[in-house]
Amino acid sequence: MKVLIVFAHNEEKSFNTAMKNLAVERLLGNGHEVIVSDLYAMKFKAVADGDDFLERANPDYLVYAMEQRVAYKNGTLAPDIMAELEKVKWADLIIFNFPIYWYSMPAIMKGWVDRVLVSGYCYGGMRFYDRGGLAGKKALVATSLGGQPHMFEKDGIHGELELLLKPILQGTLAYTGMAVLPPFVAFHVPYISAEARAAYLEDYAARLDALESTEVMRFPSMDDFDEKLHPRVDKSALAI
Amino acid sequence: MKVLIVFAHNEEKSFNTAMKNLAVERLLGNGHEVIVSDLYAMKFKAVADGDDFLERANPDYLVYAMEQRVAYKNGTLAPDIMAELEKVKWADLIIFNFPIYWYSMPAIMKGWVDRVLVSGYCYGGMRFYDRGGLAGKKALVATSLGGQPHMFEKDGIHGELELLLKPILQGTLAYTGMAVLPPFVAFHVPYISAEARAAYLEDYAARLDALESTEVMRFPSMDDFDEKLHPRVDKSALAI
Repeated sequence: MKVLIVFAHNEEKSFNTAMKNLAVERLLGNGHEVIVSDLYAMKFKAVADGDDFLERANPDYLVYAMEQRVAYKNGTLAPDIMAELEKVKWADLIIFNFPIYWYSMPAIMKGWVDRVLVSGYCYGGMRFYDRGGLAGKKALVATSLGGQPHMFEKDGIHGELELLLKPILQGTLAYTGMAVLPPFVAFHVPYISAEARAAYLEDYAARLDALESTEVMRFPSMDDFDEKLHPRVDKSALAI
Repeated sequence: MKVLIVFAHNEEKSFNTAMKNLAVERLLGNGHEVIVSDLYAMKFKAVADGDDFLERANPDYLVYAMEQRVAYKNGTLAPDIMAELEKVKWADLIIFNFPIYWYSMPAIMKGWVDRVLVSGYCYGGMRFYDRGGLAGKKALVATSLGGQPHMFEKDGIHGELELLLKPILQGTLAYTGMAVLPPFVAFHVPYISAEARAAYLEDYAARLDALESTEVMRFPSMDDFDEKLHPRVDKSALAI
């Protein structure tokens, strides 16, 4: 597979960096091709604004997604966006490797999502979920957080982690059509021993070895909704 | 009340800008004090990195939250962060006004959260949720999105909007101790008539008039969890 790792950590000796380095080595060793976008090292522009377009369809009123569509078609996206989009097109699998900040991505990676997953190519009109522009590709979130697993259970203080990650797993990755692998999450990372961190890296290596056989997560299919996006079958009525 | 509006939109003639301008006028008219942080106009730095600290507790290894704690204590946070934090301290209510990008905040506002809601003041140790550092303040998300309401119902294609906003409403705002008002959401904004937009602004004005009487959302209480953050009562057992 061709693998793009979109990586965001502000400390080059961090656990996330170790995950990234491990992934590069392991994937290459397993015969995959790998490209890394190291967003902090690239000083990646995080903020979506009018400078993202070499020309403006409407210079007087910025509708960001509309300008994305026109600029993608005309080849007038800013060069840094175009470069990332070429990597996205190339990739069979995109790994998003970041520490969780506020139950979401660090702003620099959110900026990559805002700017690179352009309307008109990655999604648009009725092309989303399993009809999204990135259908056929896979995505994996590989992340770390400070909390412990029991805080993210159903009765845990924060509730289920999968719900907290829903805007990313469903609302972003599945939305563009990518098949989403279950996230790899290392818990309590700032507080655990070197041995426990090493064990997480071994688990991550095993996940990377099993990329092609791991079952993907289930998300809505456009087939289950009509042309106005109402459910085709009223499931609540069936439940009664 | 003292109201801080944290505002992020990249088009100064946008609907979100109209919401912001309306809020300023309405809140002042109702006798409140108002400060606006217009993140795009301020060219607010979105990216959390080592430059956010005038001095580093550990110059060799950046643990962002740890440096926040030390820098907050020593008064060595970057001036732009300190200025925002002073506004946060001043405010009784913080309104987050932004368009939804990928079921979350635009990166520039996520950067405000990452950088300004510092560990050591806004949260830290066992001080979160109703024991968070911002307890006593209120928060309101005021936002717009492209989808229609039926897409965000329980059986809708994206699922309930409140779940998609959980990382913000619970994981960010309630986490710091703020009492969270139900979000104000204008749907389908890019596609609706000027009259429909005006109607949304009237609804928003009514919400602003009722700020003090609106019931806040319910989130976990630290009282329901023990010192290791296990639930004090096993609710799943009770349910059986």
